Amino acid sequence: MHSEIPPLFLDDLVVGQTYDTDELQVTRDDIIEFATKYDPQPFHLDDAAAAASLFRGLAASGWHTAALTMRLLVDSGIFGGGGVGAGMQVNWPTPTRPGDILFVRATVATITPSRSKPDRGIVEVHCETLTRDGQLRQDLMAKLLVFRKHSAA
Amino acid sequence: MHSEIPPLFLDDLVVGQTYDTDELQVTRDDIIEFATKYDPQPFHLDDAAAAASLFRGLAASGWHTAALTMRLLVDSGIFGGGGVGAGMQVNWPTPTRPGDILFVRATVATITPSRSKPDRGIVEVHCETLTRDGQLRQDLMAKLLVFRKHSAA
Repeated sequence: MHSEIPPLFLDDLVVGQTYDTDELQVTRDDIIEFATKYDPQPFHLDDAAAAASLFRGLAASGWHTAALTMRLLVDSGIFGGGGVGAGMQVNWPTPTRPGDILFVRATVATITPSRSKPDRGIVEVHCETLTRDGQLRQDLMAKLLVFRKHSAA
Repeated sequence: MHSEIPPLFLDDLVVGQTYDTDELQVTRDDIIEFATKYDPQPFHLDDAAAAASLFRGLAASGWHTAALTMRLLVDSGIFGGGGVGAGMQVNWPTPTRPGDILFVRATVATITPSRSKPDRGIVEVHCETLTRDGQLRQDLMAKLLVFRKHSAA
């Protein structure tokens, strides 16, 4: 369904282009496993503690949503020459929940070829991580170092 | 050595305060495990591919550095009432490498009490993730929802 994504080489990009990645489903176990390793706060680990918290139920760490977003982007093949982050702005309007089916909608926002290094440029890609029913879990403006074809990272 | 960190409740914070977390060491296996799950690009997975890349050697995913930073912050006890992210700006000036010993230096940048909800406020915390020998691996400006004492998330 989302299989027509071209690799993101500098040569191919046009401002305004949008790509949808494939989807993945997030389980309760995934949420607890990530939180146990990287963000062991009660509302990411335990149903009862989460129910009594601001989140009113088990919520994934925002950094988990960020990591899953990266996985969806890499698997999509968007990063033809490697996706090297040069600055990120991340926001989590709503938390990822057990059972969520997520995909990423990536829109090319700006393209700035390097003046000193003609094989590369900086591209800003607006990446919205959405549930299948349209809830925005993460809003990311990713500044990426992107290469021309035949000059991958 | 870094054991005197008070919990980060709104009541206790003063702009300019700085806290250092404890340290953790990152192994080659940690880097490959995270990348396999969340960022399976060759320069995060394979020594030979990484040596031939921009990174000139195995480099952790930036999102891995972000996740480890969160772990250090949570373990430090800084987030007394829960650390709920309300917007992040992340930059990775240099990649995390196998063997790195990381800690986070957190500095309170701004404090904005909520006008409508007196039990909480937004605090901007500048979090520098550093190696023991002073190399900056991640620069994070974290906007956090922080609660007053006795009103935790």
